Amino acid sequence: MITESENGTTVFDVLADDAPKKNWRQWLIGRPLQTADAPKQTIGKAIGLAVFASDALSSTAYATQEIMIILAVAASGALQYVFPISLAIVFLMAIVTISYEQTIHAYPSGGGAYIVARDNLGELPAQTAGAALLTDYILTVAVSISAGVAQIVSAFPEFYSYRVIISVIMVLFIMTINLRGVKESGVLFAIPTYFFLITMVATVIVGFVRYFTGSLGMVVNPPEFSVIGTIGVVTPFLLLHAFSSGTSALTGIEAISNGITAFKEPRSKNAGITLIWMSSILATLFLSISFISGKIGAVPSEIETVISQFARTIYGGQGVAYLALIAGTAIILIMAANTAFADFPRLGALHAGDGFLPRQMTFRGSRLVYSKGIITLAIMASLLIVVFQANVTRMIPLYAIGVFLSFTLSQSGMAKRWWKSGHLKPGEELVEPGSTIHYEKSWKFKMVINGFGALCTFIVMIVFAVTKFKDGAWVIVILIPIMVTVFFGIHHHYKRLAQRLSLDHYKNSIRVNRHRILVLVAGVHRGTLAALAYARSISPDVTAIHVSTDPMESEKVRQKWELFGEGTRLVVLNSPYRLLLEPVLDYIEKLLTLRGPNEVLTIVVPQFVPSHWWENLLHSQTALMLRFALIFKPGLVILEVPYQV
Amino acid sequence: MITESENGTTVFDVLADDAPKKNWRQWLIGRPLQTADAPKQTIGKAIGLAVFASDALSSTAYATQEIMIILAVAASGALQYVFPISLAIVFLMAIVTISYEQTIHAYPSGGGAYIVARDNLGELPAQTAGAALLTDYILTVAVSISAGVAQIVSAFPEFYSYRVIISVIMVLFIMTINLRGVKESGVLFAIPTYFFLITMVATVIVGFVRYFTGSLGMVVNPPEFSVIGTIGVVTPFLLLHAFSSGTSALTGIEAISNGITAFKEPRSKNAGITLIWMSSILATLFLSISFISGKIGAVPSEIETVISQFARTIYGGQGVAYLALIAGTAIILIMAANTAFADFPRLGALHAGDGFLPRQMTFRGSRLVYSKGIITLAIMASLLIVVFQANVTRMIPLYAIGVFLSFTLSQSGMAKRWWKSGHLKPGEELVEPGSTIHYEKSWKFKMVINGFGALCTFIVMIVFAVTKFKDGAWVIVILIPIMVTVFFGIHHHYKRLAQRLSLDHYKNSIRVNRHRILVLVAGVHRGTLAALAYARSISPDVTAIHVSTDPMESEKVRQKWELFGEGTRLVVLNSPYRLLLEPVLDYIEKLLTLRGPNEVLTIVVPQFVPSHWWENLLHSQTALMLRFALIFKPGLVILEVPYQV
Repeated sequence: MITESENGTTVFDVLADDAPKKNWRQWLIGRPLQTADAPKQTIGKAIGLAVFASDALSSTAYATQEIMIILAVAASGALQYVFPISLAIVFLMAIVTISYEQTIHAYPSGGGAYIVARDNLGELPAQTAGAALLTDYILTVAVSISAGVAQIVSAFPEFYSYRVIISVIMVLFIMTINLRGVKESGVLFAIPTYFFLITMVATVIVGFVRYFTGSLGMVVNPPEFSVIGTIGVVTPFLLLHAFSSGTSALTGIEAISNGITAFKEPRSKNAGITLIWMSSILATLFLSISFISGKIGAVPSEIETVISQFARTIYGGQGVAYLALIAGTAIILIMAANTAFADFPRLGALHAGDGFLPRQMTFRGSRLVYSKGIITLAIMASLLIVVFQANVTRMIPLYAIGVFLSFTLSQSGMAKRWWKSGHLKPGEELVEPGSTIHYEKSWKFKMVINGFGALCTFIVMIVFAVTKFKDGAWVIVILIPIMVTVFFGIHHHYKRLAQRLSLDHYKNSIRVNRHRILVLVAGVHRGTLAALAYARSISPDVTAIHVSTDPMESEKVRQKWELFGEGTRLVVLNSPYRLLLEPVLDYIEKLLTLRGPNEVLTIVVPQFVPSHWWENLLHSQTALMLRFALIFKPGLVILEVPYQV
Repeated sequence: MITESENGTTVFDVLADDAPKKNWRQWLIGRPLQTADAPKQTIGKAIGLAVFASDALSSTAYATQEIMIILAVAASGALQYVFPISLAIVFLMAIVTISYEQTIHAYPSGGGAYIVARDNLGELPAQTAGAALLTDYILTVAVSISAGVAQIVSAFPEFYSYRVIISVIMVLFIMTINLRGVKESGVLFAIPTYFFLITMVATVIVGFVRYFTGSLGMVVNPPEFSVIGTIGVVTPFLLLHAFSSGTSALTGIEAISNGITAFKEPRSKNAGITLIWMSSILATLFLSISFISGKIGAVPSEIETVISQFARTIYGGQGVAYLALIAGTAIILIMAANTAFADFPRLGALHAGDGFLPRQMTFRGSRLVYSKGIITLAIMASLLIVVFQANVTRMIPLYAIGVFLSFTLSQSGMAKRWWKSGHLKPGEELVEPGSTIHYEKSWKFKMVINGFGALCTFIVMIVFAVTKFKDGAWVIVILIPIMVTVFFGIHHHYKRLAQRLSLDHYKNSIRVNRHRILVLVAGVHRGTLAALAYARSISPDVTAIHVSTDPMESEKVRQKWELFGEGTRLVVLNSPYRLLLEPVLDYIEKLLTLRGPNEVLTIVVPQFVPSHWWENLLHSQTALMLRFALIFKPGLVILEVPYQV
């Protein structure tokens, strides 16, 4: 297609539609997809539960254990508080669920904390929520994978010393899967989630039957817990501390509100029902595990998880049923990591689209996924796993604070929204980028619900930060403000750049009046002459520069230049300190001070191009170093004329 | 100075003699030195001994222990062989000394193994000798520093677990000293060497006096040697193995032959006498230590060195005299590492000067030292120390094989040289690059001596390689051929490059007939227009290229281009796979196939220059990627027009 426009500019449209060539990368992540191939499938409630619940449900695998670890330090009798604390957490879970239920109906096109905060509270809260969520996704991957591997090494203790490397390999495996692009709507997701659900529900039922028939014994050979009972008293601080650890059960509850668009119509209703189901199952399983674990005298341990003790006590050994539950738990944990791999890049792209993260994060790779975000997440999570040696308990203090910060901001945003909705006239509409606000009759009631949710999650966040400050929460307390500052720094850069590059009020076009050229000459050879020919083709004003560190060599250069230099002026810079770059920089500096308006200076560097990349190590990279040294000087262009050897 | 040459080329001589600016690097390594500042001082025999003997003498600190370690594995009674084996090593030492005595007189301007092999045997033996020596210098640093630190931790066992980090810090410290440039001729070197000599000789004398008066007891609380006596029999292989370990005593004996030019006239005579002195002292100390250590029942150990046991038994405790000897030993070992820091970069520069290593290794840094060689050595030695956890015994199997290979090649070269000398007429001279060969009456006798030296060192090398093959000698057996291959690969590259760049038979000068320019346009802004102006200033044939991944964005670009493009042709490349680089590469590929002779294609890439380097992370580096992708295409220049934001 050729379009001839009125003012003489010709526009050619070339369709470069040949698919990219095959290579190792295609073998790893699959053939490229066209932009038009983006999937548009939607899912029902049963599959929706499987897709979005893995993160939330998987926390049943470690939440009980984390409460126990804190209590066990105080006194062995303190473990009786596990169940009451679990009840309090389930109460909090109910509040958060009801709050999110309202969000889902208000934001049918997806209402993650970032969007809700951005639309209702402004940039600073939105960036804070985003920073909290991004750190949280990284921790989700690290914690879930570590906890999954902990299940595996509970069943096979001979792998205990390999847990870090197994975890990292798993992260890289999930990264690869995600770089290929996972169809979230797949039945693939339903199988492991329902497998976990069935095995876990079955175990719980068997457990209760044996408990009520009195045939449920205690854990046989429980693992040792070395610091048990060292404090001796149960303080309110300790109970709050244990409660904080248990709140990790709430992570992942927000997942459905991000993904409403994936549901079949009526979207909000389907998503809302799925959320209720998810929370009910989560609460039931969590309470059951906490209750039975208390009755059987399970002991928190790094070597064997509470889930493993729970399962082998209920089934009276490590048979097939035990292994099925351990496998199901490990798989659901790995699926939870996978959820973070879906959410982190998408949130990153939202930030980047708003100009708060590098724009490259909005580019979709050959498989239509945000590859850069996926790789970033994998690297950060792997680092965490290595630093914390795949120890879940040591990562928990960093974990839930981000979740509760985003809950608080999201619910506050919703409360503000209901307040705005209450100030509209019936029938009136307020169109905002994310969603449209209608008048809502029961706005006061809904505002109170979301406001109460915000308050509760805020209090929990403070409790968490205070009780776990020393254990690592301080890292997040410092990190989130730093991240927000960086985000605004990036935003400032893009805004300023757009301003500086803007063509509004752009009048006089740039004219080049004089074009001076310097050719760097280390020796006189075919490469130099190619560069000289190039220089002379673009301007008649050419000077050759030679830095002399050895008078004998320089004399040779002079003689050869007389023969081959075609009369071009040669300037020899003597360098008694054997420096190569600095004399050139000095000379250029002097030229620049004498420069007239609209005068351009171009430095031409002859560059050999060897046949193999490693041969570059055998030559000094003068052009590269000049570029670094001169990049900040305006009106100066450095160009290499390659000479293929 | 301005010279006007006959054919119109003007030559300006500019003295860029301002000393470089102050920065952290100057603070660390001192103010720069001019090329003319190179030192020309010479030294006498007493200082010469101190400068060149530290490497050789320092091996007395570990050679005895290394023999013991091998024997102790067999049976505790096997330690009676330590002294006979030491005698055999001293015999070998005498042969090598006499051989090198002849080299010193034949090569008054310095006759290291590399030069002797190059001048008499050819390139392959020379490169082999050089590769052997370079690996050997790296090992000298690693072994000497590790052994020095082992002495320190023998006296202060609480530092045992920090030995690796202490060793690495010491390597970096010596590196810094050498980057500042050490005046080898300094009295500074004499103090520690003579301190060691005095304390060691005194200890040996006290030891003998106590032995002959019968007051010398056994080692009190000897350290444990866990694997003692596991084999039970003393085989000939075991004796050869122990002998091989002890030959580490010979390392460093060649140092004087490299540094003859540093001596006062008559150079060869002074250097020769110094060599005899050095060998005599080395032999005496080594035999004494082996003898007394045997008598007192010293036990080889990683925790406490034999020297430490030897000293505390002779002095009856860990008093001042003990500490003085330990300090002297530690210091001489560190000085030995320093010798390698002087020799490695100099040998590297010799290789590089002959075109067998990257030319950059011949550049002298601001302090007139070969900085790149010094840094390379420090990195390699630190790596070795970390890998071998500063364990001398584990490094010894890699050590002496290179030394004996270079001895063999050096002595063979000398033998060949005597043979050539014998075939000259009396009074006739054969001028060679390194030295002049005269007729020598007693050439047969001298040839036999060097030939015998070559044979002995060759046999020892084979014995060493066989007995220590499994322990690590295989690494060197593989490494040296690889290094030689790489050296020749580099040489081939430089030779081929010189040939390709040569102006011999160069006739038709390069002419540029047509100069086409492509300007990459991602968006239309001030940066793009600056690039367009630059492009139009160098050629009228300009095409703008825009890759379209988003039709809406592209439409904006088209409209703006009509306003600001000054009528320049715009080509829009549609990219359904969202690739940015590949469509441009395809387009360039097509242009190149249509190109006429002497036609040049220049790609102009507008490049923002942000005020801070980190802001570059916020932009895709298109120019950089294009450069990588297109570097091998001839007649193509890529240039960035920077736009300072």
